[in-house]
Amino acid sequence: MKLSRLGEFGLIERLRQQVPRGRGVRIGIGDDAAWVENPLGSSLVTADMLIEGVHFNLRWTSLVELGFKSLAVNLSDIAAMGGVPAYAILSLGFPASFTIREIDNFYRGLHELAGSTGVSVIGGDLSAAKVLTISVAVIGHPPRRPIRRAGAAIGDDIYVTGTLGDSSLALKLLQGGGRILRRKAAAYLLSRHHRPMPRTNLGILLGKGNLATAMIDVSDGLLQDLGHICRASGVGALVDRQQLPLSDAYRELAGKDGDSHALRGGEDYELLFCARPRNRGRIEKLSHQARLAISRVGRCVEGRRIFVRDSSGRATTLSAAGHDHFHRQ
Amino acid sequence: MKLSRLGEFGLIERLRQQVPRGRGVRIGIGDDAAWVENPLGSSLVTADMLIEGVHFNLRWTSLVELGFKSLAVNLSDIAAMGGVPAYAILSLGFPASFTIREIDNFYRGLHELAGSTGVSVIGGDLSAAKVLTISVAVIGHPPRRPIRRAGAAIGDDIYVTGTLGDSSLALKLLQGGGRILRRKAAAYLLSRHHRPMPRTNLGILLGKGNLATAMIDVSDGLLQDLGHICRASGVGALVDRQQLPLSDAYRELAGKDGDSHALRGGEDYELLFCARPRNRGRIEKLSHQARLAISRVGRCVEGRRIFVRDSSGRATTLSAAGHDHFHRQ
Repeated sequence: MKLSRLGEFGLIERLRQQVPRGRGVRIGIGDDAAWVENPLGSSLVTADMLIEGVHFNLRWTSLVELGFKSLAVNLSDIAAMGGVPAYAILSLGFPASFTIREIDNFYRGLHELAGSTGVSVIGGDLSAAKVLTISVAVIGHPPRRPIRRAGAAIGDDIYVTGTLGDSSLALKLLQGGGRILRRKAAAYLLSRHHRPMPRTNLGILLGKGNLATAMIDVSDGLLQDLGHICRASGVGALVDRQQLPLSDAYRELAGKDGDSHALRGGEDYELLFCARPRNRGRIEKLSHQARLAISRVGRCVEGRRIFVRDSSGRATTLSAAGHDHFHRQ
Repeated sequence: MKLSRLGEFGLIERLRQQVPRGRGVRIGIGDDAAWVENPLGSSLVTADMLIEGVHFNLRWTSLVELGFKSLAVNLSDIAAMGGVPAYAILSLGFPASFTIREIDNFYRGLHELAGSTGVSVIGGDLSAAKVLTISVAVIGHPPRRPIRRAGAAIGDDIYVTGTLGDSSLALKLLQGGGRILRRKAAAYLLSRHHRPMPRTNLGILLGKGNLATAMIDVSDGLLQDLGHICRASGVGALVDRQQLPLSDAYRELAGKDGDSHALRGGEDYELLFCARPRNRGRIEKLSHQARLAISRVGRCVEGRRIFVRDSSGRATTLSAAGHDHFHRQ
């Protein structure tokens, strides 16, 4: 069905009927504002915007994937504070030429991830736009002490979850096109790019366990996001290049790029955190509990700079430059 | 200064330093998520997106005005539930050619309204975009019973605050251009279009007083928004055309358009609510208390249709069509 037949309010009514009323949602979609119960009395709030032609390309990204990813990037921010995500509010702008099916596909991806993480979609705004424009805000419950970027101390270990660089390498493959995209390893990398799994469970465990001294999610590249922790905490970092967690698919297809995507590539949505060395055993337990690989990739050192040590043991300072929307590189 | 010199993170740091840390804000701009105290244990949440070329035209709208208006439209939604606005989170997409001064102007308008309404700006997202794209979400404290669109009963009076149609007529004048824009009456209408004052105080008073049986803010035109109340409440409405509140400036400049902007024009951001006839005296008191005109424009009747009665006493059903982003008119 064409959107122009259903109209804005027909569409809102349709979405209202599709969305399950979540726990704690007193008023959901369809009024001026949503009303939610928040028994913990304090909230974490984050927001992210994705714009066609800037953050994604509809030539190689499906609407299901976009719905999934637009929530995932926000859940990743809540995880990076050690919080439990609870409510999402979505503002969506799209061309009037969109079909109901396309909109449904977007919501299908969004609801898939919302359902599996216990998040209620409570409302938002629909409007016309020249290009697809997605803005999601998520409200979550904080742990007793949210984990900040500041808090790392000299001597702390530096950990990262999962593997790094998959998403950035996938984007490069997509931009290059060709037969390589049919390889099994490429399919794995693409799924990492299109459907990043926010590390919600581990984030909650780290928040409860009070184990991480500082945490951030890796959205703009390891070096850049580690740089944010270093600046906020007033420490430097020594990263062991050999310890960077790379997937088999990454190793198979990275070629001459080596580990550059793992160091500087964006959109990993893994958690990067610091912890006291005496807690290594407890971190290992958490890794088993959350069924998620956690790699110790370095430690916090004096100074403010980030050193990267290669296999020969030589440490060099690398520029932290990852993704910046406005800097000319 | 050019944005490309400052960069995304330089800009975030700059904003962080400019924004005063509000009451209840434990973590503000600069981490993965904001952390806010919410002593009432439940929240109202709303979001709105404004996109250049769809919702505004930079040829005749300044960035200060846009900053103001992008918060105002959200505060209007919180007011329409009877709530107290508390926190705003902003996602902003803009071309890299923007100057720091332009961004500053946007935030100046935003902070002006935030400051005067006690709202804390707690974070968000900055990114590149081809056209200026503004997405704001606001969290507020609900009254004991938020005022919904549903709840009006047959026999209830229908009220509207302030005056109607000013913003829509202003837009028409802007689109037409010419010398008429220099008239004093035009300046008044333009201020209503560019700097709509959300009816925050009256919304709070209505929420506390438990006086309104249903409420909505007039963003898409009186008939359309009244239609939302009628549908949600299962009532019809009889609107008295002679009671429509029109400003002197509107009367001076509307010409052949008559009261059509007051009936169907968008972006008034006045409150439209219903109340029992026995509460007329209390509503009048609220009007004095909030220093805001409140006009009784009709009453709820049987059926689901909206009738408009003219000066001869004849009532006709008018199409409710106001603004719809996707319907072809």
